[in-house]
Formats: sequence, structure tokens, C-alpha cells
Amino acid sequence: MPLIEIIALLAVTQFMYFGYKVGIQRRDSGLKAPAMTGHEGFERAYRVQMNTLEVLVPFLPVLLLSGQYWPALLIAPIGIVYLVGRGLYAQAYVSNPSKRGLGFMLSLGAVAALLLLALLGAVFG
Amino acid sequence: MPLIEIIALLAVTQFMYFGYKVGIQRRDSGLKAPAMTGHEGFERAYRVQMNTLEVLVPFLPVLLLSGQYWPALLIAPIGIVYLVGRGLYAQAYVSNPSKRGLGFMLSLGAVAALLLLALLGAVFG
Amino acid sequence: MPLIEIIALLAVTQFMYFGYKVGIQRRDSGLKAPAMTGHEGFERAYRVQMNTLEVLVPFLPVLLLSGQYWPALLIAPIGIVYLVGRGLYAQAYVSNPSKRGLGFMLSLGAVAALLLLALLGAVFG
Repeated sequence: MPLIEIIALLAVTQFMYFGYKVGIQRRDSGLKAPAMTGHEGFERAYRVQMNTLEVLVPFLPVLLLSGQYWPALLIAPIGIVYLVGRGLYAQAYVSNPSKRGLGFMLSLGAVAALLLLALLGAVFG
Repeated sequence: MPLIEIIALLAVTQFMYFGYKVGIQRRDSGLKAPAMTGHEGFERAYRVQMNTLEVLVPFLPVLLLSGQYWPALLIAPIGIVYLVGRGLYAQAYVSNPSKRGLGFMLSLGAVAALLLLALLGAVFG
Repeated sequence: MPLIEIIALLAVTQFMYFGYKVGIQRRDSGLKAPAMTGHEGFERAYRVQMNTLEVLVPFLPVLLLSGQYWPALLIAPIGIVYLVGRGLYAQAYVSNPSKRGLGFMLSLGAVAALLLLALLGAVFG
């Protein structure tokens, strides 16, 4: 199952990279903690991080659980769709938040597909 | 352990449903990203999602770890208390935030019970 | 692997303790849900909780995955660095947010080290 694990770890790495971008924006914006609003660039970077947290928390268990029931060659590509979707989402959100829909839908669709596969596996597998 | 896994997947599904409700509120409120405040219905739906994230992140590992040490017939009902508690919490928060205590306590109590069982299992098991 | 599991459960316990502090601040501040701003002590406690969520979500999988490939006597001390770092972070944030860097860096460094070890294990192990 290392292929699945590697995708899980890449998703974690991507999330930490988004967190790094928040740190950069925190520094450049001059916003003093605990303030979380008042600078557009910081708010966008923070929303990328938080929204990614909201899909990463479902993604990791459904990836690992579905990987127990289905071949890695089916699960891994769905995991890659998640990673690409999140990358597109982050890029779009920073440049123009109204364009974030495609990346959002790709990553959410990947999570939904893995959730369904994991449920099917757990119920019938 | 499929029973435990199914409960984990239902908790993920429930969380994603709460996220869907945030999306609906985002659309209906007309709030433009990255704004997260300025519309009561959106803020309530978002708090349901975020507070659920805050208990889901502990819930998933303590559910799966306690399930390694204790029979599924003990762990699964506690997991169901979590699910029901979160449902009550979400309903209450949306209609009247001051009534959210019962659902909150049920789900938090379930997480605390599973945490204790997982610790007992890991230390003595 | 119980030593690794115990550290994972301690990290969950620590996070829930930070959540408890938010509840105390919510009560003492008189802030009515869904408001999340308007009281410095509440905002600081909430940021401790949220920032810890942001590192806990990566920490748990990289701890458990790296623990599959490396001896517990290597992984467990790194996990303890995470726990100590988060404790320092929380203390500093509440008393003086500008002093939170050391604890932040300790816990983030621990997550980064475990992520690297997990990736090395998954790729070469």
C-alpha cells in the first residue's frame, strides 16, 4: 500500500505548504496575532489553508480506508485528482476567488468518490 | 472491524453534509470570498462545520484506536452517540445557538469516552 | 506500537484541553455564538485551538505512518518534541502572542521531521 501512503503524505505536504504561504502573508501583511482579518492577501491565503483542512480531514481516512478494499491503481489516480484540484483551487483563490470552483469541485469530487468506494468496501467487502 | 469503519465513514459523511450547508449559505447570503462574517445564517452554518471539524479530528483516531482494543459492540454505540449528538448540535445551532449545549455535550462526551478507552487499551492492552 | 499510539492520544488530549480553554473564554467573555471576535482572551484561546488543529491534522498521520517504518525509540521522542512545543506555544500565545515562535517552530519541526521519515519509509521501506 505504499503508493496510497505516498499520496496521503503528499496531501499532508501540500497542506503544510499552504500553511507556509499563510505565514508569509502574516509577515508581509503586518497583521498582528490574533487578528485574522484586515488584509486581503492574508485572508485569501488563510481561506486556502482552512478550506484545504476541511477536505483533508475527510480525504485522509477515505483514502486509506478505500485503499484497503480496492486496488491501488484505482485509488491512487483519484488521490492525484484531489492533489491537482487543490493546487488549482489554491492558485485560483489567490488570484481571483470567484474562479476557485473548478479546483474545489475536483478535490471534493475525489473525496466523494473515495468515500463511496470506502463505504462500498466496508459494507460489502 | 467494518462496523467501526462504517461509523467513521458516516461521521465523515455527516461532516461533508455540514460543509454542503455552508456552501448553500455562501450562495444565498451573497457573501463574497474570502469574507467569513456579515451574514448570520452563513456564520451559524460555518460554525457548525468548524466546530464539527474540531471534534471530528479527535473522534476518528480515538474511534479507530479504541476499536482495536475493545469489542465493536461497545465502541459502535458510543460512535452512534457522537453522530446523534452532532446532528442535534447542528439543528440547534442553526435555529437557536444558545440551545446547542446538549448536542455538543453528547458528541464531546462520546469522544472523551473513546479517548479514555483507547488510552486504557494502549497502556494496559 | 503502543508507545506511538499513546503519544497520538496525548496529542488528541492536549488539543481537547485547548478546546476546553476556548469554552472557558467563551463563557467568561460573554461573546454570544456565532461571534468569534471582539474579546482578546477568547481570540487568543481560539487561535491556539485552531493553529493546533492545523498541525495536529498532519501530525497524527505522519506519526502513525513513520512509526510503521522506524523504531518507536526514534519516533516517540520526536512526538514528545511536538507535545512540548505545542504546550509552549499555547502558554506564549495566551500571555504574549509575539513570543509564540519557539513553541510553533518546535512542533512544526517535529511534524516536518516525521513527514520526511514517513516519506523515506514509504518510498524506500
